Amino acid sequence: MPPIITLTTDFGLEDAYVGVMKGVILGIAPEARIVDISHAVGAQNVAEGTFILQAAYPFFSAGTIHVAVVDPGVGTSRLPLAIATPSGIFVGPDNGLFAPILHELGLADSTGALRPGATAVEIRNPAARLAAVSATFHGRDIFAPAAAHLARGMQVTDLGPAVQSIQAPPGTGPVRNSDGVTRGAIVHIDHFGNAVTNIRGSSLAGSEIVIAGDHEIGRLVRTYGEGSVMALVGSTGLVEIAVRDGSAAEQLGLRVGDQIQVVDR
Amino acid sequence: MPPIITLTTDFGLEDAYVGVMKGVILGIAPEARIVDISHAVGAQNVAEGTFILQAAYPFFSAGTIHVAVVDPGVGTSRLPLAIATPSGIFVGPDNGLFAPILHELGLADSTGALRPGATAVEIRNPAARLAAVSATFHGRDIFAPAAAHLARGMQVTDLGPAVQSIQAPPGTGPVRNSDGVTRGAIVHIDHFGNAVTNIRGSSLAGSEIVIAGDHEIGRLVRTYGEGSVMALVGSTGLVEIAVRDGSAAEQLGLRVGDQIQVVDR
Amino acid sequence: MPPIITLTTDFGLEDAYVGVMKGVILGIAPEARIVDISHAVGAQNVAEGTFILQAAYPFFSAGTIHVAVVDPGVGTSRLPLAIATPSGIFVGPDNGLFAPILHELGLADSTGALRPGATAVEIRNPAARLAAVSATFHGRDIFAPAAAHLARGMQVTDLGPAVQSIQAPPGTGPVRNSDGVTRGAIVHIDHFGNAVTNIRGSSLAGSEIVIAGDHEIGRLVRTYGEGSVMALVGSTGLVEIAVRDGSAAEQLGLRVGDQIQVVDR
Repeated sequence: MPPIITLTTDFGLEDAYVGVMKGVILGIAPEARIVDISHAVGAQNVAEGTFILQAAYPFFSAGTIHVAVVDPGVGTSRLPLAIATPSGIFVGPDNGLFAPILHELGLADSTGALRPGATAVEIRNPAARLAAVSATFHGRDIFAPAAAHLARGMQVTDLGPAVQSIQAPPGTGPVRNSDGVTRGAIVHIDHFGNAVTNIRGSSLAGSEIVIAGDHEIGRLVRTYGEGSVMALVGSTGLVEIAVRDGSAAEQLGLRVGDQIQVVDR
Repeated sequence: MPPIITLTTDFGLEDAYVGVMKGVILGIAPEARIVDISHAVGAQNVAEGTFILQAAYPFFSAGTIHVAVVDPGVGTSRLPLAIATPSGIFVGPDNGLFAPILHELGLADSTGALRPGATAVEIRNPAARLAAVSATFHGRDIFAPAAAHLARGMQVTDLGPAVQSIQAPPGTGPVRNSDGVTRGAIVHIDHFGNAVTNIRGSSLAGSEIVIAGDHEIGRLVRTYGEGSVMALVGSTGLVEIAVRDGSAAEQLGLRVGDQIQVVDR
Repeated sequence: MPPIITLTTDFGLEDAYVGVMKGVILGIAPEARIVDISHAVGAQNVAEGTFILQAAYPFFSAGTIHVAVVDPGVGTSRLPLAIATPSGIFVGPDNGLFAPILHELGLADSTGALRPGATAVEIRNPAARLAAVSATFHGRDIFAPAAAHLARGMQVTDLGPAVQSIQAPPGTGPVRNSDGVTRGAIVHIDHFGNAVTNIRGSSLAGSEIVIAGDHEIGRLVRTYGEGSVMALVGSTGLVEIAVRDGSAAEQLGLRVGDQIQVVDR
């Protein structure tokens, strides 16, 4: 089977943007199988794009090509990247989108410097772009054609010159202080109103109390059926705040960026 | 051609959930063709999930595998089901989602007891699940892999032990009273603001007056061009309340659950 | 490879409508590759449907079948059309949707009269429809089956009798007055809140001032990074009003239909 190409963008579904990218891909690689991850990433919210792609890529086969376009710097000097890893090929702008994933895979340090096992290039080969490159839509003109050429067998190293280091986002992981309190943040509100934090469930002992803003949520429970307002480890492995049959974000007034504390008691 | 797998969920399109299910499916059955029915079922609204799937499955070929995940009881003791019928294979939680469809096909009675022609099993075969099953995302861990294995040729009976009866939803069909009045309800507001009722057009003579709450709508018309506020039989065969070039739900203040009366005059 | 079938509708994604069309297509042409352009065209907004399809079709291969259903006249006497061109086959209602595209391709004049190179027919062949045609859902009953039969190799001329002229929309292009001012309008607000006008960037010299309602926006810039409130030529070649890291529509109160002036100074 030809590889899968996944798409993660902040383009929404109102416009022709996503369809156009698919037209470009299928024009070059007619047998490509295209899978939408999400096109509802918050406008120009690079960190949320990372979160969505991070939740998805581990469930795709190693040869999958993941195109992600959340690109506030389109048309400026930020580089267009393709990065080959043993867990998939990533294609998109060099703006911090991919660094946390490479870091999680052990293929980059926290500054974005690449380690052996990752091969990154600046996409520059004119044969792998549309003939005219606009200043506003590199998803169509650069990233979709590059992904399609990769799907047809072109190597990442054929796309352009090697890059040794990629852009890292500002550090936003949770921090454990000397007072024994871990402080993290809400990174995403999901479709059900669950507030997803950046705190890994595996980092907790299970006896801790989770506090969201002024709301003491309590200890971790195991399923959405076990409480009315609750904290639990969601399907991405991260701690979530949820409300049974309701929206935690609405009922507790939670928003992306709000502080979450985890306290030993 | 390998079978089609359809997806109907309340997951929305903001998150990676749907993309993740597709990654799992294509990892097991790379040739599967996946079709989205809708991911905008009201959160945990099992009856609306049934309505959406009921509108779609008759238009798919008999070998199609329909995965539906509207699953308030995920992580509790409700069974994961696969049900083979001559009209398609249904995969999802045992919570009333499928019983009205089996009933409509003559394959279950109103209590959910199955009749010859339907083969239902509890999905329990570890070879047809992901290695780790979470408490919160059976769409990914159980239903997507089961559907993919079915698409590759596994038999429903290989997925687990037989089940003789499935969960039936609380009775919500329209009732014809001794006063000659049929009382039904609105089950869905569609994208155009049309209010879809649970009253079949084929059950009416055509001379009746349709009343929605306080609003006397009038007799059935044939097309959306024939009135300003009107009742007609929509594409699913059910009576709908519509407003020309507008939203009936907004203009008449109609909501899911509102009573609809049909009166002989 | 079998042809691609694209779908552009105002059906939304809440309902089963789009999934049903795909079931019908795959039942007739199991190998068809279906690509969604958008299902978020404003309800019954034919001009916006044209705009979306116009942005997408140039990026698909010439054999692609474009199904567009924005159809306020469904069930009335408006004709169902299939139009073969060297740039793709267009399938949908005869209500003005396709005329601007045929005009742009030089295949129709401004009244909708067809020129050599375009072959249009009324879809009337019962063998290319569903057995029962409803009064409300020709997307399912007529357009999806026609597209699927075309994908399997049926010729457009087999679908029904020839049509010499198609419906043209009321003229809405920008007008350049004797005072040297070009007056156009906003035709679409995109996902990012950019206000897309009907003024082609290629018609401007670059020295003009763009005015949206009461707001003097200024001269054209090249990228979204170059201003706070700005006018630029977007990826569709049309002049857009944008706000950096924000929504121009919200901040300037712009809506579809608002007048845009371009003034030489």
